[in-house]
Amino acid sequence: MIYLDNSATTRPFDAVIALMAEMQQNNFGNPSSLHRAGILAERAMIQARNQVLSCLGGQDGNFVFTAGGTEANNLAILGTMLSRIRRTPRIITSEIEHPSVMEVVLYLKSLGADCQFVRVDQNGQVDKEHFAELLTENTALVSVMSVNNETGATQDIATLCRMAKQKNPDVLFHTDAVQALGKIPLNVKETGVDLLSVSSHKINGPKGAGGLYIRRGVHVKPVLFGGGQENGLRSGTQNTPAICGFGLASELTMASMAEKTAEMARLRTKLSEGLSKIPGCQVVSVENPAPHIVCATFPGLKSETLLHTLEMREIYVSSGSACSSNKPQLSPTLLAMGKSRKEIEGAIRFSLGHNTTEADIEAALSAAREESELLLGISR
Amino acid sequence: MIYLDNSATTRPFDAVIALMAEMQQNNFGNPSSLHRAGILAERAMIQARNQVLSCLGGQDGNFVFTAGGTEANNLAILGTMLSRIRRTPRIITSEIEHPSVMEVVLYLKSLGADCQFVRVDQNGQVDKEHFAELLTENTALVSVMSVNNETGATQDIATLCRMAKQKNPDVLFHTDAVQALGKIPLNVKETGVDLLSVSSHKINGPKGAGGLYIRRGVHVKPVLFGGGQENGLRSGTQNTPAICGFGLASELTMASMAEKTAEMARLRTKLSEGLSKIPGCQVVSVENPAPHIVCATFPGLKSETLLHTLEMREIYVSSGSACSSNKPQLSPTLLAMGKSRKEIEGAIRFSLGHNTTEADIEAALSAAREESELLLGISR
Repeated sequence: MIYLDNSATTRPFDAVIALMAEMQQNNFGNPSSLHRAGILAERAMIQARNQVLSCLGGQDGNFVFTAGGTEANNLAILGTMLSRIRRTPRIITSEIEHPSVMEVVLYLKSLGADCQFVRVDQNGQVDKEHFAELLTENTALVSVMSVNNETGATQDIATLCRMAKQKNPDVLFHTDAVQALGKIPLNVKETGVDLLSVSSHKINGPKGAGGLYIRRGVHVKPVLFGGGQENGLRSGTQNTPAICGFGLASELTMASMAEKTAEMARLRTKLSEGLSKIPGCQVVSVENPAPHIVCATFPGLKSETLLHTLEMREIYVSSGSACSSNKPQLSPTLLAMGKSRKEIEGAIRFSLGHNTTEADIEAALSAAREESELLLGISR
Repeated sequence: MIYLDNSATTRPFDAVIALMAEMQQNNFGNPSSLHRAGILAERAMIQARNQVLSCLGGQDGNFVFTAGGTEANNLAILGTMLSRIRRTPRIITSEIEHPSVMEVVLYLKSLGADCQFVRVDQNGQVDKEHFAELLTENTALVSVMSVNNETGATQDIATLCRMAKQKNPDVLFHTDAVQALGKIPLNVKETGVDLLSVSSHKINGPKGAGGLYIRRGVHVKPVLFGGGQENGLRSGTQNTPAICGFGLASELTMASMAEKTAEMARLRTKLSEGLSKIPGCQVVSVENPAPHIVCATFPGLKSETLLHTLEMREIYVSSGSACSSNKPQLSPTLLAMGKSRKEIEGAIRFSLGHNTTEADIEAALSAAREESELLLGISR
């Protein structure tokens, strides 16, 4: 199979799978237990926390392990805002956020929060003038994603963060970096963000792990209550095998990141250029594309149809993001970029992984060309 | 090592570890993806859901997979009550709940909910007269655990549920069955509960999976927001390897439950009787004990000291529940049962697993006798 849906999920590294099995066999203790079985589990978790923090340049900060990116985004936004809701502080997010940010912000809006949505331009970049207009002194939280999951558009988080802090030094800046980790350099000190969410299963780590970086001194309240694990911020027995798998995946990803992302970017360009030559196909162009995502649209086709014809050739891609593909609606991201209904209905996402090959890209290109020609011919 | 801390966590079955590794290698798709890799993952998850539901006698109901028992308890309580908080409905829970129930109820109390705590008697049984007094027509939710995690006391959930429904047919009844699954028969039809929480890693399944049974027709709102997975009730990419590991662990546990629990109960009795003969040791007696937990106290000793001396002999037990052992405080469960400070400070929990042997129990007994005699001698 040719798996070009790595932004939905990835196959874990073999070393990660082996580590998890090993831990389940020989280091299965509850890290809250006071005996050696617990202490060994806790030690492994401390190592994993350091592995993840060092990917983010955030060794001075805290990292709360959660069950994944969605929970990390919920913790970042609800954990900072839910207790302030009566003061109706402003929350600014973008129009193109992942549902795990957007739906949380909409929930806060339903509770009475002042939620503002900054526009993006046709290339998927946050409109900085509009952002400046929305920033007020009572803006308490900004949440803008680092890399968009549908288009690969990368935001200038450092500048947005500086703008926000200039307006209100007390503002908290959160970025959903789930699609950014391992794909673009992340450094919380350089960008100045206070909160940053990541997910394990997008970087060849296991499902069931992710977490939230929290700058030292930033106060977050829990969204899940119980035994007080993770410094009270995330109750529930820690999923130590997945956490340690996440730590290892982070380390392995960082160790070869420069070469892997250079190769991914080269293949991405080849894919993007090849797609743009297919009659009837338009590549959704973005500024500063991340190295692993190409969104292309075949106006007049239904993306699901093309997805399934490619699937019959064992080429796996996505129509819209997998996270929202259960909800049949027009992609808010592509709508925000000014795409038409036809363009959006025909959009396909190709997402590359660390082991995507030139042959995969060539096969995907010829399949996309042949199948779309056939389908567009039929539908004409 | 002699692992007698199975109520904190268990070693997964070998078949579970193998299944998870196999899925991570060959069935790693995102169940929300529309292509075959996604559909295969979803199919495996459907099987797991049926495996768990059939352990609960709840094939007609829904089961929402969460990251564990804590999240399931949070979903059960916050998901039914948070949206009703302005009507100040009554919530009744017991004094001996796990922190993942107690802390959620206390959170609702801090928001203004009318929260009532039903007393237990000296044997750890919910006081039915007190319960009847607390039940009102505007009681919206009752949450009483099936098996206490510190003492093994088993509650008469069917009767409590019937009492609650007689007072108010619209009341929702939730039970935290994390320590009950695989240990005592569970049947949601017979007991009549509306919501029931379980956890995978307590039954030799992986960490990172658990869930909430929801009777058909019961309306629950999510506590985590995002892509709308699990019928909108639990957003976030499903942890399919852990979910399927949980399903398999449920099935394996049920397949041999009668013989395993009979053997556990026999060993539990042997342990309990042996402990009661140790000078200075008092077994915390409970009515209807679950087959896997013995709580014993050595008044005058600090439980941590005994724990660590047993640990040096590679015998692993718990002081209080692991889930709250990070928080040094007197066990609310033992306090509610009328135990003194000295009794509580000297309490040790032994929890048996499916592979606990007679030799383990004998070794634990002689170690507990020798070490406690030595320590009590020193401290006298």
